[in-house]
Amino acid sequence: MKLLAIDTSNQTLAVAVLEDEKVLAHFQLNRKMNHSLTLMPAIESVMEASGLKPTDLDRIVVAKGPGSYTGIRIAVTTAKTLAETLKIELTAVSSLAVIAGNIRTSKLIVPLMDARRNNVYAGVYRWENQQLVTELADQHISLTNLLDQIKEPAWFIGDASKFKEQIESTQLTALISEADELNLPNGIVLGKLGFLAEPIENVHAVVPEYLKRVEAEEKWLETHQLEDENYVEKI
Amino acid sequence: MKLLAIDTSNQTLAVAVLEDEKVLAHFQLNRKMNHSLTLMPAIESVMEASGLKPTDLDRIVVAKGPGSYTGIRIAVTTAKTLAETLKIELTAVSSLAVIAGNIRTSKLIVPLMDARRNNVYAGVYRWENQQLVTELADQHISLTNLLDQIKEPAWFIGDASKFKEQIESTQLTALISEADELNLPNGIVLGKLGFLAEPIENVHAVVPEYLKRVEAEEKWLETHQLEDENYVEKI
Repeated sequence: MKLLAIDTSNQTLAVAVLEDEKVLAHFQLNRKMNHSLTLMPAIESVMEASGLKPTDLDRIVVAKGPGSYTGIRIAVTTAKTLAETLKIELTAVSSLAVIAGNIRTSKLIVPLMDARRNNVYAGVYRWENQQLVTELADQHISLTNLLDQIKEPAWFIGDASKFKEQIESTQLTALISEADELNLPNGIVLGKLGFLAEPIENVHAVVPEYLKRVEAEEKWLETHQLEDENYVEKI
Repeated sequence: MKLLAIDTSNQTLAVAVLEDEKVLAHFQLNRKMNHSLTLMPAIESVMEASGLKPTDLDRIVVAKGPGSYTGIRIAVTTAKTLAETLKIELTAVSSLAVIAGNIRTSKLIVPLMDARRNNVYAGVYRWENQQLVTELADQHISLTNLLDQIKEPAWFIGDASKFKEQIESTQLTALISEADELNLPNGIVLGKLGFLAEPIENVHAVVPEYLKRVEAEEKWLETHQLEDENYVEKI
């Protein structure tokens, strides 16, 4: 099975082509760039490096969030369009799981993303029999609340080094990664998770997992009823 | 400091551009291709993705082997030529250390490459205070002999899954990786190690670390004295 993996859910763009779980090509770009301009050329570049035509692909896997609203929309829309056009399978994987998959450890793994105002997008993961399993579901949560729930030695990755002091003040055994190879999404890891995930039956039904409404929407809801919600078109 | 990392010492080609230990762009290609044809375009591609000109670079880091004789020569020659032309620093890092750096664990790490006839290129590494340290120097060694020397729980990576049965028969606690993200050289890891390595004073003096003579040379030496050795030009 030939698979294309796409992640633009955060600042890093990661794309990879895998064949039967073996990597053919992988590209990561980690500059403040416009993903809508860089994603398609990056896909073309890994496809060409892999020696594949789009029609050779059997499956697309996309990192579905959480992360940047715009970034997630770009990846999910591109993935849906490619899957629909090529009539191939689509799978979607948590963007936090992708980061968690960067590290092999017997400890807990806490991938987190800065969601501002001392909030984070985070989940808690663990490797069991070389499978990545979820201990605490991805959520938008205050860092304090998250840390309260972690009672075991853990690796904190992703944006963790931004919160080093606060994490270390409550988690005496915390390991905090400052290494990009552990903190940035890796297209190979996304690809591997994409092989394991169930294909989505209705490609059109795939929606990003923001985990939190955009601020403008939250403000709107403060003064409007939920019945109004189709006033703002979803997705 | 802006750094370009280059590894073609094995089947995988990995190139990355880092700025002050932060990744800008990273590309891995893992097909049986001619590295001499693919390396320069790959370098151009990550440089362009990073928004850098060659003259912006401050340092080159190259994976110096062990691995494929031809592959190592291509990377080392390209790296020396770039460093010399741009008048910038050059550092060289063990290709086994690069693979070892893929995994964070409190266990020993044994990166190994198949060197045929049940021999391997291997070293033993360990993380200490988030630094990768060498426990057993890189060497060309029989797998049996290597396994005899490992008395602690260890992760075996690189080509380890080819030798799964033999490793597991002597190492009851062995963890053997079948995951490409752990087994293939990563340009980001090479770049990180390249920041830590001392720049080489005489760029011309850098030579690949084959760890073993090519077979033709070994056969020649069976019937010839070492004084003849300049008969075959070195490197």
